[in-house]
Amino acid sequence: MDKLKTEILDLAKSAQRASLRVAELGSGEKNAWIKNTCTLLQERREIIFEANRADLEMADKKSVTGPIRARLDLSGSRWDDMISGLEQIAELEDPVGQVTRMWVRPNGLKVGRMRIPLGVIGIIYESRPNVTIDAAALCVKAGNACILRGGSDAINTNLALGEVLRDATTKTEVPREAISVISMTDRSAIDHLLRASSFVDLVIPRGGPELIRHVTEKSSVPILRHDAGICHMFIDKSAQFEMASSLILDSKLRQVSVCNGLETLLVHRDTKDDLLPRILKTLLKSGVEIRGCPEICRILPEAIPAKESDWTTEYLDTILSVKVVHGLEEAIEHIRSYGSNHTEVIVTESIKTAEDFLDRVNSSTVGVNCSTAFSDGFRLGLGAEIGISTSKLHAYGPMGLEGLTTEKFILRGEGQIRE
Amino acid sequence: MDKLKTEILDLAKSAQRASLRVAELGSGEKNAWIKNTCTLLQERREIIFEANRADLEMADKKSVTGPIRARLDLSGSRWDDMISGLEQIAELEDPVGQVTRMWVRPNGLKVGRMRIPLGVIGIIYESRPNVTIDAAALCVKAGNACILRGGSDAINTNLALGEVLRDATTKTEVPREAISVISMTDRSAIDHLLRASSFVDLVIPRGGPELIRHVTEKSSVPILRHDAGICHMFIDKSAQFEMASSLILDSKLRQVSVCNGLETLLVHRDTKDDLLPRILKTLLKSGVEIRGCPEICRILPEAIPAKESDWTTEYLDTILSVKVVHGLEEAIEHIRSYGSNHTEVIVTESIKTAEDFLDRVNSSTVGVNCSTAFSDGFRLGLGAEIGISTSKLHAYGPMGLEGLTTEKFILRGEGQIRE
Repeated sequence: MDKLKTEILDLAKSAQRASLRVAELGSGEKNAWIKNTCTLLQERREIIFEANRADLEMADKKSVTGPIRARLDLSGSRWDDMISGLEQIAELEDPVGQVTRMWVRPNGLKVGRMRIPLGVIGIIYESRPNVTIDAAALCVKAGNACILRGGSDAINTNLALGEVLRDATTKTEVPREAISVISMTDRSAIDHLLRASSFVDLVIPRGGPELIRHVTEKSSVPILRHDAGICHMFIDKSAQFEMASSLILDSKLRQVSVCNGLETLLVHRDTKDDLLPRILKTLLKSGVEIRGCPEICRILPEAIPAKESDWTTEYLDTILSVKVVHGLEEAIEHIRSYGSNHTEVIVTESIKTAEDFLDRVNSSTVGVNCSTAFSDGFRLGLGAEIGISTSKLHAYGPMGLEGLTTEKFILRGEGQIRE
Repeated sequence: MDKLKTEILDLAKSAQRASLRVAELGSGEKNAWIKNTCTLLQERREIIFEANRADLEMADKKSVTGPIRARLDLSGSRWDDMISGLEQIAELEDPVGQVTRMWVRPNGLKVGRMRIPLGVIGIIYESRPNVTIDAAALCVKAGNACILRGGSDAINTNLALGEVLRDATTKTEVPREAISVISMTDRSAIDHLLRASSFVDLVIPRGGPELIRHVTEKSSVPILRHDAGICHMFIDKSAQFEMASSLILDSKLRQVSVCNGLETLLVHRDTKDDLLPRILKTLLKSGVEIRGCPEICRILPEAIPAKESDWTTEYLDTILSVKVVHGLEEAIEHIRSYGSNHTEVIVTESIKTAEDFLDRVNSSTVGVNCSTAFSDGFRLGLGAEIGISTSKLHAYGPMGLEGLTTEKFILRGEGQIRE
């Protein structure tokens, strides 16, 4: 057995042992570790930024620019957000041990569902080193051990953050082995983790299509994909200009490098004499590049003809693909064919069309008359989020603490038999 | 591409197309199909029993006997149970479209969770041809299409039942392609299904350890294991003889070929002068073969020394492994090491020990003072069950209609943006 495999399996085994202890900790004990982490992050601020600068320099050498480079950077508001995120997680209600329902059977047997941790959770993510902190805090708060594997482009920052997370266990009940950051940048480290189904209960891949495809193919551990967002907005014929343009601009431009950003706009053909040209002009004026279907290109000479691949591209940039459709039916058909089960929104004044869209589109978040940017655990009131699942099982859509737990059945009897 | 692979992929693709239609059907339309199935089963009773006799003769030629042969047999009460099971499923509340929660965010955005079907569900099972009927009815009632693959030993019966399920779609809104029974007994048919992750949303393997291992290794489709049950009962020192013996006998002997049957008894050492010998004698008198730890073999000369493998064996027979433990801690340790996350019960008069057991044992069903036989969807009040999941994600333990659905987020806004 090769050395790397042995190392990953050893790490997974000790995570599993640690997970049994984490599962039995009370909220106070887990929160003490989160608070230690906050303190230690501030104390080691300089060390961490030094590591982060090393990663940024590496990116510059590879000529990485734009949103991809920006994601790597831990400075500015991102640092403060990371700390306040931790403080919020400490304040979240502990899901472990909650009895969510309890009922009594005709024979007097009491039956309930109790929330329990999943066990060991592997998180495989790209860029964004702050995920290291968020993900570890959420996993442990929900009573789990975690194994973290960030992108090789953020390896220095991730390892520095990992040391903080582990050192913060000192003088707490949380075992050090409950948090591991995989230091090997070799991609086969991921593959060994994905085959460790005896020790790992869940793997969450967060990243681009290539990572997701690789993990789906290789994993014998259950996975919840946190996939690209090809988010759609459908502008119905009854939509009003003010609301439509404000929702489109917020969904596309609020922050372009996020998975809940708008990537494809579908517009009802009945709007093409008035509403549609006004929307297109507003987009152009806001600096958005438009890749359009032939009809859009006829209306707007500045539009670039969309290729087939544009309908499945997550631009993460100031680019929007726009298509004219005959109505709700064609919009739904397009979303089913090209979407990624992430977030879709309709803008309409018609109650019938709104309800049809809500009922029939089965993406993980489906909205009426709101920005796609609300597809976010914090904005929806989940307290925090580990990511946005596009896998239908277990947790579909923004996934908070609850998604990191499961429910067992508990039975309270007085000697009941079935015979 | 080989022919078998093409056939399975074509079947999966048409199941996916059909699933979009099933997802939009109302309860009345799905129930009409279930009722047609009942009628058609009665009409074709003779044809089905002829197919079942062919399977039984095949089993006899292979000298299959005991519980394994019994499971194949569709006659007697099993036929009537199958029909009444269908009638019950028709009466179950339809989960699709249920909004399980709805809350309002500070900005007025209404956020809810709506139940939706999973899509296409593959079920891979051994023996028990009645599963063909139950599983198809549950999948379609929950708005899904299903692909069924029973054991090759029941192939004639399964194909006859599959024809009934498909023919019953005539004059209903349920598309015929929503139900498929794979007719190819070649095992690689399973492997092709397990790689069809673009078309299949979930695979449920129900069967022995070899099947489960194979499916876990090969599948890129999400799976929920419905695994062997190595169920434990722990007799605490405070247990009373009457209750303990009645629960042990019911758990072990009510029906020996079921996954919620008792396989290992753990007994507190402080009972060994009185309670334990009485329990062992009762078991012997009831015809149970005892495989004991050294301490048990000293107390009961008739006991057979347990081998290490006995602690992980699902006997499905009148055999019980019995071990003396020092107390709760060792009982939990044993369950964690040898159990299969199915069902564990404690028999105790101590509230402290009962609560510790309920909190700390994280198998899918954990009980106090009741028979292990209650780990059953119908008995727990779920209405019906597709099986008992030993996978922690999504549905852990007895799994009913709800487990065949997921929840999407729905947002109802009035133009809210995030900026």
